Amino acid sequence: MENRQWTLDAQNISLELAHRMIEAAKEKAAEIGIPFSIAIVDNGGHLKAFAAMDGVGLLTIEIAQNKAYTAAVSRRPTHEWYERIQNEPALLHGIVHTSRLVIFGGGYPIRINGHVVGGIGVSGGSVSQDMQVAQAAIEFASNLTKK
Amino acid sequence: MENRQWTLDAQNISLELAHRMIEAAKEKAAEIGIPFSIAIVDNGGHLKAFAAMDGVGLLTIEIAQNKAYTAAVSRRPTHEWYERIQNEPALLHGIVHTSRLVIFGGGYPIRINGHVVGGIGVSGGSVSQDMQVAQAAIEFASNLTKK
Amino acid sequence: MENRQWTLDAQNISLELAHRMIEAAKEKAAEIGIPFSIAIVDNGGHLKAFAAMDGVGLLTIEIAQNKAYTAAVSRRPTHEWYERIQNEPALLHGIVHTSRLVIFGGGYPIRINGHVVGGIGVSGGSVSQDMQVAQAAIEFASNLTKK
Amino acid sequence: MENRQWTLDAQNISLELAHRMIEAAKEKAAEIGIPFSIAIVDNGGHLKAFAAMDGVGLLTIEIAQNKAYTAAVSRRPTHEWYERIQNEPALLHGIVHTSRLVIFGGGYPIRINGHVVGGIGVSGGSVSQDMQVAQAAIEFASNLTKK
Repeated sequence: MENRQWTLDAQNISLELAHRMIEAAKEKAAEIGIPFSIAIVDNGGHLKAFAAMDGVGLLTIEIAQNKAYTAAVSRRPTHEWYERIQNEPALLHGIVHTSRLVIFGGGYPIRINGHVVGGIGVSGGSVSQDMQVAQAAIEFASNLTKK
Repeated sequence: MENRQWTLDAQNISLELAHRMIEAAKEKAAEIGIPFSIAIVDNGGHLKAFAAMDGVGLLTIEIAQNKAYTAAVSRRPTHEWYERIQNEPALLHGIVHTSRLVIFGGGYPIRINGHVVGGIGVSGGSVSQDMQVAQAAIEFASNLTKK
Repeated sequence: MENRQWTLDAQNISLELAHRMIEAAKEKAAEIGIPFSIAIVDNGGHLKAFAAMDGVGLLTIEIAQNKAYTAAVSRRPTHEWYERIQNEPALLHGIVHTSRLVIFGGGYPIRINGHVVGGIGVSGGSVSQDMQVAQAAIEFASNLTKK
Repeated sequence: MENRQWTLDAQNISLELAHRMIEAAKEKAAEIGIPFSIAIVDNGGHLKAFAAMDGVGLLTIEIAQNKAYTAAVSRRPTHEWYERIQNEPALLHGIVHTSRLVIFGGGYPIRINGHVVGGIGVSGGSVSQDMQVAQAAIEFASNLTKK
């Protein structure tokens, strides 16, 4: 008898959660005091929601989206990419040329109940500030969906 | 005496207005009963805010952004592009290859007090539905900023 | 009390089903007697499985993938695109420039138990032959997963 | 008398061999216990067969194809690229920008009876795991075609 798996269960982020995560990121940004671009992609790396805060540099628009994309499709935070490749010179000089791959901090996969449902990417400040803003949104989502 | 103009006044859309326009578009979408992708760009055609409503086809993500871009950078609604080129075969077969140019309905420049401050693009239904959703957001912005 | 939907259920095609669909397509191709390129993408339009039958023209490799992509992300067979836009000249001259959009036959969304789990695209013969090969795989999947 | 060579003998991988190599790679992957993307290209670098194992990160889809392409069109394993350029800074910082060139391990040319007939590329684990999976398929092909 047949016992194969024809389809795979997946979970995708809703627009409502994406919007709320952007609001949570904006609150953290207000605390820090500078503007950021904030991108949310779905579990396939496709743009779900985006906000460029007033006054943010235009270069951040693409970087934030690429961070979100990298985190969602590689299912790891973008800063782990550099940690992972720093001692492997072939990767350090090579894999960085992969389309839309970002190897520095500010992107995180969004995990809800064990599924990667999307990714968030933040750009606008230092890497550390970008990471803080993204983490605030990740923590918000984690608390919200635990209830 | 020199009497040249060294700088040009410009007005750009704020994130607050962009978000509210997306909310207005989503209300119209709920009325129509199908999901849409809604993109807002600034006066330089750069992405300002974006939302892909749950269940919308992924192809709409790029189309909505390109409509907003076309409308902002050409300062005319996207449907006027086709009207304008339909009797000029060289344009009809040529200018359509311009990067990101959309010649069908669903994109509008956002004009506030005589300035083009950005563009909105909507994709997800028929051209006529896309136009209705975008127009609802344009009217909302117009009323809001007149007050 | 909160009553929102934070995540959306999705189903994605398994590699096992993708491989079997390619085998079903190859059987139909053998019947017709010419080689085809056959592409299967997942529900986000990402390549899942691919086969270029011996002797097929190289141009078909991209076309088959783009048909599968279009069908998955627009959730309609590619031949319906032309039917849909043929009387709307603005779309006929405009939307065809959308990245990777194919408006002629040979691409079908793969629907399993009401979910679009991916898409199949076939290229190598006439449009009618491409459609027959793709349909054979779609029917195979439909019968297999009904059991 | 003219004694020029007007045509060049070539040998190209068949779909049957490509499929069997993918199966051999999947067996090795099962042994290692994680999913991989596996790509086979022909002797011109064009995609011949592809499989993304269930659960593999989406970023691997492009990387696996680029490894196979690099190996086939340069006729050397991708890891040799880094070895070759590491002490030539102009290459190390320059040639890595070549379209689709991968300089780290996981891609191998497929040589049958002295002809390069294609390439295989694997992505999904560490470089060392990717190399093991690709090598298993190369060894399988080598044994199969020796008989």
